[in-house]
Amino acid sequence: MKVLIVHAHENPDSFSSALLKTAQATLIEKNYEVNVSNLYTQKFNPIAGKHDFTKVSEAKHYKYALEQFHAHQNDLFINEIKIEKDKLVEADVLIFNFPLWWFGLPAILKGWVDRVLSYGFAYGGDYGIYEKGRFQGKKALMSITTGSPSAFYTKEGVHGRTLDDILRNTQEGILGLVGYEMLPPFIAYAVSRSTDEVRKSYLENYKNYLNEYF
Amino acid sequence: MKVLIVHAHENPDSFSSALLKTAQATLIEKNYEVNVSNLYTQKFNPIAGKHDFTKVSEAKHYKYALEQFHAHQNDLFINEIKIEKDKLVEADVLIFNFPLWWFGLPAILKGWVDRVLSYGFAYGGDYGIYEKGRFQGKKALMSITTGSPSAFYTKEGVHGRTLDDILRNTQEGILGLVGYEMLPPFIAYAVSRSTDEVRKSYLENYKNYLNEYF
Repeated sequence: MKVLIVHAHENPDSFSSALLKTAQATLIEKNYEVNVSNLYTQKFNPIAGKHDFTKVSEAKHYKYALEQFHAHQNDLFINEIKIEKDKLVEADVLIFNFPLWWFGLPAILKGWVDRVLSYGFAYGGDYGIYEKGRFQGKKALMSITTGSPSAFYTKEGVHGRTLDDILRNTQEGILGLVGYEMLPPFIAYAVSRSTDEVRKSYLENYKNYLNEYF
Repeated sequence: MKVLIVHAHENPDSFSSALLKTAQATLIEKNYEVNVSNLYTQKFNPIAGKHDFTKVSEAKHYKYALEQFHAHQNDLFINEIKIEKDKLVEADVLIFNFPLWWFGLPAILKGWVDRVLSYGFAYGGDYGIYEKGRFQGKKALMSITTGSPSAFYTKEGVHGRTLDDILRNTQEGILGLVGYEMLPPFIAYAVSRSTDEVRKSYLENYKNYLNEYF
């Protein structure tokens, strides 16, 4: 079994990077083959555009999603994107590992979604969406660090909403839309304001979480 | 009165770009001063990181948000970011003009949020969040194009959720969090599959919308 972890944190000493290492160690021990897309070290370009294609179509009106479709049918993606698609197709499990920024993905990871989960490849064309999505039968999860403490994410709390509600756009609207069975997200709250002890217990909990689900 | 439109579409002939031009023309006619951050033509870098600062602090653990805070206090942002902050502070009205990608902002615009709405500058420090956000007293709106038709965005529809629900992360969680009074979003559904007539009426409706609110 193969796992792809898409990691979106700049600092290798961050807690998010510690979660990455925990997942790698835990899953390798269980005989998973673990592949990592470390977006910051890869200097992954998040900007979707014409530069994604070795050649654009002769369509009268250039439209990014339709160019993705055309590129999928004619093998016209640049290597940066092809490599990510290949890793994704090979993987039985996908993990997004990132700090929650503005209730969503850091731009470098959002750009991975915009460019790699392309029309024709991940949805549309031969595939539908949701229960007909390409990655049906595969599992995905998000391992997330937050700035706010958990108490902020309640109807009565500062944000007035639960984190489950906030994460639906990514859980259902991205990974669910392309067919993944979503495992519950693993959340480490307010890690930068936590004690070493709390941080250690988060890593232990994440290890247990992975052992439970895999 | 000054307006800043942050525009996130690659193609100047796109419908999203037509919305931009409609807003410019309509608001200039009403004697607004209209400034545009055209992220694709500016080649705006969406990646948040150490390169945002002319000098990083001597903190033991590098943490992006804390560096933003430090840079705000010591005037250490690079020009690319300073310019955007200056435009934002001057503007009485902020418009995000973009195609909805994966239920959220295209990465180039998400990166503008990650990097420009920095800790200490837009929230935190001298400012709180939501009703204590920095941009209290100012208005913001989103003008959006979608791929899906409106019928997809209902509880019974394909996406199983309303667009209002999907947009809360941006309406409340980004622009609302830094204090803006949010006007209703202007939505043009499934424009690439619409007739010229429908597209024209969307532009007319947008003009009317702007005339009503400004």
